[in-house]
Amino acid sequence: MIIVMNNGATEEQIEGVVKKIREYGLDANVSRGTERTVIGAIGDERKLDQELFDALPGVEQSMHIVKPYKIVGREWHKQDSIVDIKGIKLGGNQIQIIAGPCSVETQPQMDAAAKFVHEAGCRLMRGGAFKPRTSPYAFQGHGEEGLVMFRKAAERYNLPMVTELMDARQLDTFMKHDVDVIQIGTRSMQNFDLLKEVGTINKPVILKRGMSATISEWLMAAEYIAAGGNHNIIFCERGIRTFETYYRNVLDVTAIPVLKKETHLPVIVDPSHAGGKAWMVPALSRAAIAAGADGLLVEMHPTPCEAWCDADQALTPDELKTLMGSLGAIAGAIGRSI
Amino acid sequence: MIIVMNNGATEEQIEGVVKKIREYGLDANVSRGTERTVIGAIGDERKLDQELFDALPGVEQSMHIVKPYKIVGREWHKQDSIVDIKGIKLGGNQIQIIAGPCSVETQPQMDAAAKFVHEAGCRLMRGGAFKPRTSPYAFQGHGEEGLVMFRKAAERYNLPMVTELMDARQLDTFMKHDVDVIQIGTRSMQNFDLLKEVGTINKPVILKRGMSATISEWLMAAEYIAAGGNHNIIFCERGIRTFETYYRNVLDVTAIPVLKKETHLPVIVDPSHAGGKAWMVPALSRAAIAAGADGLLVEMHPTPCEAWCDADQALTPDELKTLMGSLGAIAGAIGRSI
Amino acid sequence: MIIVMNNGATEEQIEGVVKKIREYGLDANVSRGTERTVIGAIGDERKLDQELFDALPGVEQSMHIVKPYKIVGREWHKQDSIVDIKGIKLGGNQIQIIAGPCSVETQPQMDAAAKFVHEAGCRLMRGGAFKPRTSPYAFQGHGEEGLVMFRKAAERYNLPMVTELMDARQLDTFMKHDVDVIQIGTRSMQNFDLLKEVGTINKPVILKRGMSATISEWLMAAEYIAAGGNHNIIFCERGIRTFETYYRNVLDVTAIPVLKKETHLPVIVDPSHAGGKAWMVPALSRAAIAAGADGLLVEMHPTPCEAWCDADQALTPDELKTLMGSLGAIAGAIGRSI
Amino acid sequence: MIIVMNNGATEEQIEGVVKKIREYGLDANVSRGTERTVIGAIGDERKLDQELFDALPGVEQSMHIVKPYKIVGREWHKQDSIVDIKGIKLGGNQIQIIAGPCSVETQPQMDAAAKFVHEAGCRLMRGGAFKPRTSPYAFQGHGEEGLVMFRKAAERYNLPMVTELMDARQLDTFMKHDVDVIQIGTRSMQNFDLLKEVGTINKPVILKRGMSATISEWLMAAEYIAAGGNHNIIFCERGIRTFETYYRNVLDVTAIPVLKKETHLPVIVDPSHAGGKAWMVPALSRAAIAAGADGLLVEMHPTPCEAWCDADQALTPDELKTLMGSLGAIAGAIGRSI
Repeated sequence: MIIVMNNGATEEQIEGVVKKIREYGLDANVSRGTERTVIGAIGDERKLDQELFDALPGVEQSMHIVKPYKIVGREWHKQDSIVDIKGIKLGGNQIQIIAGPCSVETQPQMDAAAKFVHEAGCRLMRGGAFKPRTSPYAFQGHGEEGLVMFRKAAERYNLPMVTELMDARQLDTFMKHDVDVIQIGTRSMQNFDLLKEVGTINKPVILKRGMSATISEWLMAAEYIAAGGNHNIIFCERGIRTFETYYRNVLDVTAIPVLKKETHLPVIVDPSHAGGKAWMVPALSRAAIAAGADGLLVEMHPTPCEAWCDADQALTPDELKTLMGSLGAIAGAIGRSI
Repeated sequence: MIIVMNNGATEEQIEGVVKKIREYGLDANVSRGTERTVIGAIGDERKLDQELFDALPGVEQSMHIVKPYKIVGREWHKQDSIVDIKGIKLGGNQIQIIAGPCSVETQPQMDAAAKFVHEAGCRLMRGGAFKPRTSPYAFQGHGEEGLVMFRKAAERYNLPMVTELMDARQLDTFMKHDVDVIQIGTRSMQNFDLLKEVGTINKPVILKRGMSATISEWLMAAEYIAAGGNHNIIFCERGIRTFETYYRNVLDVTAIPVLKKETHLPVIVDPSHAGGKAWMVPALSRAAIAAGADGLLVEMHPTPCEAWCDADQALTPDELKTLMGSLGAIAGAIGRSI
Repeated sequence: MIIVMNNGATEEQIEGVVKKIREYGLDANVSRGTERTVIGAIGDERKLDQELFDALPGVEQSMHIVKPYKIVGREWHKQDSIVDIKGIKLGGNQIQIIAGPCSVETQPQMDAAAKFVHEAGCRLMRGGAFKPRTSPYAFQGHGEEGLVMFRKAAERYNLPMVTELMDARQLDTFMKHDVDVIQIGTRSMQNFDLLKEVGTINKPVILKRGMSATISEWLMAAEYIAAGGNHNIIFCERGIRTFETYYRNVLDVTAIPVLKKETHLPVIVDPSHAGGKAWMVPALSRAAIAAGADGLLVEMHPTPCEAWCDADQALTPDELKTLMGSLGAIAGAIGRSI
Repeated sequence: MIIVMNNGATEEQIEGVVKKIREYGLDANVSRGTERTVIGAIGDERKLDQELFDALPGVEQSMHIVKPYKIVGREWHKQDSIVDIKGIKLGGNQIQIIAGPCSVETQPQMDAAAKFVHEAGCRLMRGGAFKPRTSPYAFQGHGEEGLVMFRKAAERYNLPMVTELMDARQLDTFMKHDVDVIQIGTRSMQNFDLLKEVGTINKPVILKRGMSATISEWLMAAEYIAAGGNHNIIFCERGIRTFETYYRNVLDVTAIPVLKKETHLPVIVDPSHAGGKAWMVPALSRAAIAAGADGLLVEMHPTPCEAWCDADQALTPDELKTLMGSLGAIAGAIGRSI
């Protein structure tokens, strides 16, 4: 950590900072510049609380220079991690497209969806049984019954099921139905108690980025899961909130190469929630793959106009098939496969 | 709801929209303009799903024209609601300043804090036993033990205790220790399962605004609590996330008059988390009261430089006393009291 | 335009709105719903001032339903426009990569840059002679002398020159040196007097998006140029300002398909300013092309570590060459060429 | 400046940075930590280009520790600066409310406006003759003729006139009509050539904050003016752009105490453009004064419903009078006067 003193800081104040650093068992390097004195803390700075130093008299600002994340960081784990989902590899050369409806509605809808997901060439299926809805009066999902319908539809095609967990109290239910991949939604990215819970199990976790979470906060949220022992974490960029009102969110493609640099874990993208409109999905999907994403989470519905939620952002089965073709070409252009 | 058709929409597409509106039991008004046809749905539009209409062929966009919130909205409940906290009124003429440390650290720290809160003339006390921390390696709060320390310190001065609930599984513990006001933190504003739980109890709830939540989403989060039967809700503006990096968040004072217009419920402000620095607190507190806030949530620590978290944003006991004096003058200027 | 009345609006207030609409020569359609009355204005709503209606008593809100842009909009001009730059087509099947240094420094630097741009297979060259710098104490560009150096270097390889115009008073100088493409920078996107000036000449104009400009404001800025008679406009997405601090801006790839839908004009992307770091440029460039961009504006410097500005975002000549190869593959995957 | 090296940086790379620092005539302090080496540049770091160091091999990041602004900064000019406008002091104990219409429309409108401004007790008048409008088809202001009308109306009550300059080519006209205070609008905050021009004259300048300008960029924009010799600069906060759509902008009250700490120059607030609705103006005005603003820029129109622009944000004459009373009480509460 580096502590920059005010330009009028006294010797006593400088001493105060040095003393505090030593209390934590670190060494201090004092560098007296023309206008400012700068103090460097030498040793494991993760022990130091930045806010504590900012509160000391005479301190202008302090900065961490070491990354706050350890397990998920690439600094100590250079090679790419591959998450294995019932034999399907996420994070390797092959790109995985996870498709399916926003929510589990009926058994026929899920059966049809599973068939179309399989026929389009996708190897994993998504669908929500527990739904986070802005309004308490909107359809909240079928709950456990939805997991049953999902499982029944998915197993016919050997599609591992990806579904969202909103509440730690539902984790047992998820384990009972052997959900294959647990999705932590945007609104739960900093639900720390939930993160701790999924850190204790041995299931792959898709961690969506919070609506306005920084890269650093996102990595720290993953560190919560990893610190519990579960290292099967997949980051999912799903658009961030900005001033633009034409589209629901702004897909942050820059996050893809940045995460690939900062972490060894796989990164996927949800182009459906990012744009919020089905017609934007192909362009955003291509951009995500071209930027280096390891997979996509795409909404497809057998009959979008009748979907119970997010109707305007789901692809039709045919559109999904066409998309898969175009993504195959992009993947080939960068030496990967779909 | 109003549905705007594309300028090339066919008669058949217009008919499709009208049919869909009627399926929900509403009437349709078709207005053919020079460049666009506009269809109005007449009846209780809350039944209509906007996304469903956006997905229909020929539709350019649709807009709700009725507010999605009912119980918390002022439209159907004109007079101000006052929340009663053990006889202390929040939302009336008297402004309430809730002060105390960021987190419960030790019994002596809480005892000293309670004494200073009382001496400054504040009537409620805050303090965190369960702490949402960005890093899994940071101090996570004392948990239940912290509630015990807090209660012991607060009851000597008859200060109702305000503390954060992060996980529905802790609600029983909160009830057991008879926490007076439950705070729902920024990261939990859209933890819908948690909102449903606090909707079933009879305790006042402070609902902090999410980091980048719109006014509308915030009101809908309150509607979740209200729909469960608990109408003792207090909104707390605590700064929103923007591009500015000089301060932690941007205190959104405009939200104060806007909420006062949209809802009958009380509105308070947290100037400490908004700015993130103790020296900004007095100016922000004055602004909040001048803009019409019904109260404040202020961090004060007996010895800020030793605080275990957010050290740089806590006021000293003396600073709190001085602040109370200056707020009294502002309150008087707008015909209220502290 | 649609005008939504308050739910307590009186007959007199409704009449007031209808009267105002008729004053402008339009017709009014009044639709009385269960909770709100909605008034539609029928005729050319571009004549109506939304703020004027919002100010009328009893009005809750009003909404335009017709696009405010005419000339640049695709609604009245379905086919793609191609901008011709000395015989090089921008906006057609072939993608154009415009490369060069951030600023014109010396003749040898420009000569080397031109050579490398040409060798990498790029057909246009960029470089700044007038530089918008945050600090008044930073290098402000060589001005006219810079244009001379640039021309000399560029003409050896028949590279049309692309350079930024910051001030209307410099337009004569730009015409005198026959600058091929005039760039309007981010900070000038709403310099309306400057837009009007470049609207009067017959040169292609690259219009960069403002730091936090909405798609709609950006289209209207282009409409300023177009309204003056110059329709040779190229949109350039260069990243928007958000809360994220890891990278300088967030490249908004969604803007690409959205602009392609809203306007018939070409769209290019500046991946260098978006990310702010050279190592991010390849991934962002690929994403831009995959999303449908018609070209790129890329910073390349013969020796980046010695660049006078934005040193950390310029590619080396070798990196540019490698990038061109990888972009060729992406272009091929979507049926285009580089 | 502090340069942090990658944790794998070689001795040669460290030497490269030290050498570069010395080339600029500064000294280097090398501090070898457990995980990172940190290099401090000792001397006048304003000479160092941060991007240049970021581009050097082995560098992870660099940070300036000295403020980039000199003349406008409080560090070297401790006491408050007061701007004198024809004998009216801005920045002292007395708070100045500058009122008037958005735009100059007709002579009778301006005459009436001047009378009402005067009667409400305001000492300065605002009004726009050159209008920055999002649409090229909207009313663009009367130009020079507007200045004449404004002058005629204002001089009857000895009201200094405040009006916006959009284009450097109009400066002579402004001088000819002896405009008292030149306003630089939001969209021109980084029109550096315009800033340089108003830096050469001896007129007070109101510098509005850019729509998404950071505090630091804003201070640097002022530094452009100050560097030219004109130190009569007044900052004007007018709301920033965020994700919230309920109101036009978010008034950033935190900017007020922050600017007062960073600069010795006066700070005023525009509550009309911030909220965008007349009914929000009183609450925002009170908040601004309570937070320490030295004045306000308020829109008032003799008959708002007929205003040619921003009709819904102008106060009526009566509302202005009432506001002045309420602001007087707030000013009194903080020991100031109106």
